[in-house]
Amino acid sequence: MIKKIAVFTSGGDAPGMNACIRAVVRTSMYYGIEVYGIRRGYNGMIAGDIYQMTSHSVSNIIQRGGTILKSARSKEFMTKEGRQKAFEQLQKFGIEGLVAIGGNGTFTGATIFYDEYGIPTVGAPGTIDNDLFGTDYTIGYDTAVNTALEAIDKIRDTADSHDRVFFIEVMGRDSGYIAIQSGIAGGAEIVMVPEVLTPITEVIETLKQGWNRSKSSSIIVVAEGDEEGNAAEVAEKIKSRVDIDIDIRVTTLGHIQRGGIPTAYDRILASRLGLGAVEGLMNGHKNVMVGIINNEIIYTPFRDTIRLPKPINEDMLRMVKILST
Amino acid sequence: MIKKIAVFTSGGDAPGMNACIRAVVRTSMYYGIEVYGIRRGYNGMIAGDIYQMTSHSVSNIIQRGGTILKSARSKEFMTKEGRQKAFEQLQKFGIEGLVAIGGNGTFTGATIFYDEYGIPTVGAPGTIDNDLFGTDYTIGYDTAVNTALEAIDKIRDTADSHDRVFFIEVMGRDSGYIAIQSGIAGGAEIVMVPEVLTPITEVIETLKQGWNRSKSSSIIVVAEGDEEGNAAEVAEKIKSRVDIDIDIRVTTLGHIQRGGIPTAYDRILASRLGLGAVEGLMNGHKNVMVGIINNEIIYTPFRDTIRLPKPINEDMLRMVKILST
Amino acid sequence: MIKKIAVFTSGGDAPGMNACIRAVVRTSMYYGIEVYGIRRGYNGMIAGDIYQMTSHSVSNIIQRGGTILKSARSKEFMTKEGRQKAFEQLQKFGIEGLVAIGGNGTFTGATIFYDEYGIPTVGAPGTIDNDLFGTDYTIGYDTAVNTALEAIDKIRDTADSHDRVFFIEVMGRDSGYIAIQSGIAGGAEIVMVPEVLTPITEVIETLKQGWNRSKSSSIIVVAEGDEEGNAAEVAEKIKSRVDIDIDIRVTTLGHIQRGGIPTAYDRILASRLGLGAVEGLMNGHKNVMVGIINNEIIYTPFRDTIRLPKPINEDMLRMVKILST
Amino acid sequence: MIKKIAVFTSGGDAPGMNACIRAVVRTSMYYGIEVYGIRRGYNGMIAGDIYQMTSHSVSNIIQRGGTILKSARSKEFMTKEGRQKAFEQLQKFGIEGLVAIGGNGTFTGATIFYDEYGIPTVGAPGTIDNDLFGTDYTIGYDTAVNTALEAIDKIRDTADSHDRVFFIEVMGRDSGYIAIQSGIAGGAEIVMVPEVLTPITEVIETLKQGWNRSKSSSIIVVAEGDEEGNAAEVAEKIKSRVDIDIDIRVTTLGHIQRGGIPTAYDRILASRLGLGAVEGLMNGHKNVMVGIINNEIIYTPFRDTIRLPKPINEDMLRMVKILST
Repeated sequence: MIKKIAVFTSGGDAPGMNACIRAVVRTSMYYGIEVYGIRRGYNGMIAGDIYQMTSHSVSNIIQRGGTILKSARSKEFMTKEGRQKAFEQLQKFGIEGLVAIGGNGTFTGATIFYDEYGIPTVGAPGTIDNDLFGTDYTIGYDTAVNTALEAIDKIRDTADSHDRVFFIEVMGRDSGYIAIQSGIAGGAEIVMVPEVLTPITEVIETLKQGWNRSKSSSIIVVAEGDEEGNAAEVAEKIKSRVDIDIDIRVTTLGHIQRGGIPTAYDRILASRLGLGAVEGLMNGHKNVMVGIINNEIIYTPFRDTIRLPKPINEDMLRMVKILST
Repeated sequence: MIKKIAVFTSGGDAPGMNACIRAVVRTSMYYGIEVYGIRRGYNGMIAGDIYQMTSHSVSNIIQRGGTILKSARSKEFMTKEGRQKAFEQLQKFGIEGLVAIGGNGTFTGATIFYDEYGIPTVGAPGTIDNDLFGTDYTIGYDTAVNTALEAIDKIRDTADSHDRVFFIEVMGRDSGYIAIQSGIAGGAEIVMVPEVLTPITEVIETLKQGWNRSKSSSIIVVAEGDEEGNAAEVAEKIKSRVDIDIDIRVTTLGHIQRGGIPTAYDRILASRLGLGAVEGLMNGHKNVMVGIINNEIIYTPFRDTIRLPKPINEDMLRMVKILST
Repeated sequence: MIKKIAVFTSGGDAPGMNACIRAVVRTSMYYGIEVYGIRRGYNGMIAGDIYQMTSHSVSNIIQRGGTILKSARSKEFMTKEGRQKAFEQLQKFGIEGLVAIGGNGTFTGATIFYDEYGIPTVGAPGTIDNDLFGTDYTIGYDTAVNTALEAIDKIRDTADSHDRVFFIEVMGRDSGYIAIQSGIAGGAEIVMVPEVLTPITEVIETLKQGWNRSKSSSIIVVAEGDEEGNAAEVAEKIKSRVDIDIDIRVTTLGHIQRGGIPTAYDRILASRLGLGAVEGLMNGHKNVMVGIINNEIIYTPFRDTIRLPKPINEDMLRMVKILST
Repeated sequence: MIKKIAVFTSGGDAPGMNACIRAVVRTSMYYGIEVYGIRRGYNGMIAGDIYQMTSHSVSNIIQRGGTILKSARSKEFMTKEGRQKAFEQLQKFGIEGLVAIGGNGTFTGATIFYDEYGIPTVGAPGTIDNDLFGTDYTIGYDTAVNTALEAIDKIRDTADSHDRVFFIEVMGRDSGYIAIQSGIAGGAEIVMVPEVLTPITEVIETLKQGWNRSKSSSIIVVAEGDEEGNAAEVAEKIKSRVDIDIDIRVTTLGHIQRGGIPTAYDRILASRLGLGAVEGLMNGHKNVMVGIINNEIIYTPFRDTIRLPKPINEDMLRMVKILST
């Protein structure tokens, strides 16, 4: 059986990564596996920034945002030389398997690394965007949605007090997940996502219907990657095409969406996935991502998480329309 | 097709009930159905405390805890005379169907009422305890877990600073759902739930193992209905059986778990269920609860939600043990 | 004695305005004074959008952000015709005194209005910027600082995880109050405010000292009106002048700083000022702002609040430097 | 000049203690003073649990509740032998001055210690109760009030939904500060504090007046040390003397009030006091507590902070009455 593994975080940080690291470490201890932490992702693997972890190393971190192992995107690991160095470092420590907490960039690297050096990786989906095939939710997504929602709640106070239209840009370059969930929960009139085109004319129509019902303020949530442009551009288009006098404001939530204390959901999800990743390695899994689908632990090959798109639920967009009636 | 419906909340209040009321009203408006609100549950139905609602009635309530329709437990509705009066009031308004947001007590009343007077009800599960068969989650549960978790996080600050053992009692008279989720997310060493007996000797054993690893503080989460007694009683038993000097404290979270701003999850769940309840009535459903299982809308007969227990996930209890290694 | 008064909110909304409205209404009821609410500031005064308020009108609003009376900036009140109409509306209702919750723009209008029509106003300082002479704190300031601080805490999670330098822009066009307090509380390395020039060279020097101590991430808080330009401009200047490779990010907190549930401090301050405003009118005060200085209620003439600058505490800037050692 | 100092926390923990420790360490570094941390208060001093601190030791702790130095109440330090051992330990490290973060128990010990061994202490007021003479606010108080307030806000959701009367017990055995501030901010109808007797008959009278105005729910905040008994006892008395049918509930907030992320106010206060404590030692102060009165740093002899009571502001109790009109 596998005797020594290492865990690292890679790519953008996400709330709940620490809960996942904790679960990887504690589960390893439980099964008598030695466990090492690698700092700064593949960069630290190459540099040998690796240390042994114990139960105590992960005390009192379950509630912290960010990642105690730090994260980075590594250019060097994309070179053959970089991967060679990484392998040598792992050999020094006798590491036989890896848990990689990150997204598709991380999993792509792990796949190549396995082909070259035969060290198996089980991935855990850590990204606020929830754009990974093979799991219903990713680590950090529930927290990011609640952070966006708190911001929307605050902005609505101001929108209502001044009879304003607010365009709020949330994260999600290729994915409308954060936008849809925070938009529905925030009572937005319209949600604009990259997966589905919302024509500007439709936005204007919805706003006008609201004004006719003397709805004086409106919230429009825009995913950063929306086809009609980001929030500022959409707002400009609206202003230029509507002749009546409305007070339109734009705000971009930005980096606050990545941080913060993880929600219960994210801590539990991260714990289950960390446990599942270690048990996956123990059972001989390799080049797979551990996910939860319909409340069951599922292992999906990296080639599928990388290749297959994760569709959004169009029923949710239908619901936005109905609930803004 | 159904033309007039009414909505009410009944039993203990839960965060997200307002989001559900909003969805019921807006969905009705969308489909051209007249919608009425009944205040104070069955008591208001009997008293005729009923008023027509419009989109505007539910503006700016999605983020509020409690219920704008107020709630109550009704003794009078348990009598034939009470139900007769309720029926007469509904007839006055021409109401042809009901959406009841509540739990099994509410659904039992609705079933009897249908048998007597033929007015169909679709129920939406509104209770923080998550103890209803027919849905993965109930409205208010995710918020209650996060509220309990925030409290646990705060208490751990003090536990760590003083090397204390804390027993924290959370809600859940017959159900360990809140305890398990808040316990895992809060990094509790032990979680005690009504569904599974945790012997006092095992609690003592786990605490001792922690001390041997020089783990100086511990958190034990106890559901209020635990067989070994509530948190204060369990703490007393431990104190009387352990001879070494430890500083044990007990705290009961109490009513704060019912209130608060609903999380994104609860608002979206409540919105989906409110929409599903109205569409259920439109499609001729009666005496059923709308729920979401594996992300799909499901209608379960009241007789099943009332009769069938909702098992807890024992894998979760296993996880508590592994993660406290 | 004065028998009928009216209250309104004007200018930018601020958390705690509702607590102040509540105190004005309840204090009036307590003393047997009839009290009216005017919606949308001076615009509503001109339009006669005025209604009688009772204790019940202000139930359950103490915790809400924004203002139930809505707010606006009025161009029409700056004209003689506008003020004439406003006076006629107030006469219709028999209103003998006004409580204006807002800032210097509001107080300037009130002063002119008194000179023309003799209706006295007592002002309450409602602005998140804390830039009003005559009070230690303004309504909304403590909440805005805590909102900015929560955002900084979240961003630090990410900064630490990725070894980044973050420039965070907070509100305060002419005033560094929010920047200083949120910067100190957020553990910022540097705080840049409009009142005091922080040369770019000094910023670079401080960052370099940190890197030499292997401090890998840094937070710089910039008030939106800083002389060296806003956060994005300052960040650009730094990037162009530093030759080593650092990952610099910029985020602008924006409108979230105006909204949100008011803190205990803001609710108590707002309540005291609302009470003080009504008692001020009862005691014959006019054209004054009620404030709290060293925990005492003080009435300061509008001409002073308008004319006199409110200096920032330079000791605080000294503290930023010491604490980033 | 003083060259080596040590800092410790003692008594009950309070949010902001870490921010104070950080300020003590960073200020010492700034002035070139060596600084040591003592773990677990006087117990650690006796045991020699002392380590040198640097800027890095206090990185990323400003936002954390509890105390990284841990705290304890020491019986051994109350003995001559205990203090002798403590002195010997301090001598080993060459420590010439102490910063003690705690309350009057801590300061009493420090005074005796100085008389015996001549090592000067400057105290910083760290207690959530705000019951120390010599400072307007103590470290942790603002956070505790906001924590109590959040709980009150949540409970009001439920109180309103069910037309209930809630008795909420907050901390403050000898002091009504938390009760008054959280009560006013929470819109409580009545606040009961140890300093002033509120007769049960007056409570009943106020409740009845509310019911006559058809105010259906009420919140009564009770400090744990109230003369009429704690919240449960007061509620019992009310129930036994009122003949009409009301739904009365009691909840005790308990230990959550000690923990949590410190507010901006507490972090800034703690930072100023930490800086002031070190500068106090540098300037030859001994046996004094550093406090802030009317925004100025003040040093008050321990004998006064111990002997003199801190009166509550009776104007605040008057305000409770007016605002519940």
